[in-house]
Amino acid sequence: MSIESSSCSWQEGLYDGEVYVSGEQPEIMGLIKLNSNENPFPPAPEVLQAIVEFDARALRFYPKGDGSPLRKTLADIYGFNDSNIFIGNGSDDVLALAFKACFGKNKPILFPDISYSFYPIWAKFFGIDFETVPLDESFRIVPEDYAKENGGVVIANPNAPTSIGEGREFIEEILKNNEDSVVIIDEAYAAFGGFSAGELVHEYDNLLVVRSFSKSRSLAGLRLGYAIGSDLLIKTLISVKDSFNSYPVDSITIAAGMAAIESEDYFRMSIAKIREVREKTAEQLKGLGFKVLPSSTNFIFITHERVEAKVLFNYLRMKNILVRYFDKPRIDNYLRITIGTSDEMETLLEETANFFQS
Amino acid sequence: MSIESSSCSWQEGLYDGEVYVSGEQPEIMGLIKLNSNENPFPPAPEVLQAIVEFDARALRFYPKGDGSPLRKTLADIYGFNDSNIFIGNGSDDVLALAFKACFGKNKPILFPDISYSFYPIWAKFFGIDFETVPLDESFRIVPEDYAKENGGVVIANPNAPTSIGEGREFIEEILKNNEDSVVIIDEAYAAFGGFSAGELVHEYDNLLVVRSFSKSRSLAGLRLGYAIGSDLLIKTLISVKDSFNSYPVDSITIAAGMAAIESEDYFRMSIAKIREVREKTAEQLKGLGFKVLPSSTNFIFITHERVEAKVLFNYLRMKNILVRYFDKPRIDNYLRITIGTSDEMETLLEETANFFQS
Repeated sequence: MSIESSSCSWQEGLYDGEVYVSGEQPEIMGLIKLNSNENPFPPAPEVLQAIVEFDARALRFYPKGDGSPLRKTLADIYGFNDSNIFIGNGSDDVLALAFKACFGKNKPILFPDISYSFYPIWAKFFGIDFETVPLDESFRIVPEDYAKENGGVVIANPNAPTSIGEGREFIEEILKNNEDSVVIIDEAYAAFGGFSAGELVHEYDNLLVVRSFSKSRSLAGLRLGYAIGSDLLIKTLISVKDSFNSYPVDSITIAAGMAAIESEDYFRMSIAKIREVREKTAEQLKGLGFKVLPSSTNFIFITHERVEAKVLFNYLRMKNILVRYFDKPRIDNYLRITIGTSDEMETLLEETANFFQS
Repeated sequence: MSIESSSCSWQEGLYDGEVYVSGEQPEIMGLIKLNSNENPFPPAPEVLQAIVEFDARALRFYPKGDGSPLRKTLADIYGFNDSNIFIGNGSDDVLALAFKACFGKNKPILFPDISYSFYPIWAKFFGIDFETVPLDESFRIVPEDYAKENGGVVIANPNAPTSIGEGREFIEEILKNNEDSVVIIDEAYAAFGGFSAGELVHEYDNLLVVRSFSKSRSLAGLRLGYAIGSDLLIKTLISVKDSFNSYPVDSITIAAGMAAIESEDYFRMSIAKIREVREKTAEQLKGLGFKVLPSSTNFIFITHERVEAKVLFNYLRMKNILVRYFDKPRIDNYLRITIGTSDEMETLLEETANFFQS
């Protein structure tokens, strides 16, 4: 049973692809965890209520494979039919299935060189060719660069880890240049102030918009994401799901998701608070000499001319503050910092100021 | 947005594979649902308690990607290390990832012609060649038939929908004939009286045993399954998970799963009850002239010389009793009937008796 045992031929066929590395989840008392873009606020009171009231005896039954009745709730609230909504086990699951459903039998798919690091991993997992397109000098996506032949396009908007969001005109330019491909817009962070392309699904049959309950709805612990798209795209996504795992979403998660969607006041309030703290934190960091990219998300992406990002990362970690450092070309002198509570961000700022004095 | 719109070239690259068709989940008042092998009893009281006591405020955090601390609970209870346990979003998720992790780069994998109908679909999904091996006349798996070159073997034990379980000698024969392949034993139903190959993982590094919480633990509504295997197999499975979806299991499901594992008395009691009702039902159906295959599961597989299975299926459905009919070669005159409560089975028997009188 040890890995070191002599190699047998059954070992030769094992998968050896690259994997996604997520933010650490250490269990340290008093840790300020600003590394996974989790929401600093708990889920809405309505969600807590829905979980307590859920009839757990009914867990002996399988959930609805299509995520009903949440599917209808989402369709109603965003002005679509059920047939335009796909529900999955977090937006990672939805995106992975969408890669398989929609992307590039022969031509490479396109996505930015700096973006969600799961994109190249999914492409490799499913044997899909891809080509990364460089962001410009200021880490913006250049829409004209996506006006070439491809087997599909995936854009995170706002982009991560840059935090920069683009507007309707930008998305429409991508769409107009890609009538022969499926365009996936990954909106994991759109609720924090970005433009959402949901409404464009009415106009573009080849557009798939993917969203998550993890960040804006404080539900990372219940795996729930969804996609909005044309009947054909959603039908294809369902086929792919039914070729892999028919019931990916827990019944209790469907119930919690419905309550989350219906608790609109709490949602708006918590988003507004995070944006307020974000802007204040950004100003204060600028005061310490940091360059802070304009954020439309619940995190900021920062760099400092006179500071090595990795050194600051290690210093903060020693002070029990966990942020995210990516050891990757172009962004290896940046830190990604999730927006926590006011108090957490105050502590971050104090320790960062101390760092300069040390 | 309509499927009927004229074909654009983006539509040409869409996935068009075969899908798994699960049992219907109709919402009909008073329906006796014996078509999905769900447990007639609710989850253990300890599970209901764990859900009520779960601190839902913590749902703002991601779950542990490896399913901790349930991973350790399972390792402890079955006498393994954490590194021998993989946790997934139902055993379908575990099996799908295991196909990708372990199976056949060049040679076809083997499984019975009559078995879980997801196997060929996963193989096609991942582009894995396969060959089905016929069951014998009495629907038994013939172990010698798996003694040929292959890229992997997957056996459901007990098998579905036949309900027949095989013992240790059988499994060891398969393993001894397949030292160069990974052998997956799918034990979705083993808790209902079959032999479990878990202990053989200590002896065979190429054995992966996959189990589910859906049936025996009454938790189909929370998607939870696991695999037991050598360090290398589990490490590879984790790599595949981390190439697809890093956090597939909800935090609350991990908590519920731990409570389910710890409520051993309830588990034994409900299994014993289901087996008792199963044997009684089988005897009564034999009294009506049915052939009932020897079951080690929570369902029975029956046929009758003078009755068309499909006709009886439709009759029972009209009487609000839903069982499972497979329109497939060799088994198209059989019905698969889940063991429900005593009352439900009494009603089934009454209506079946009425069928003969009508």
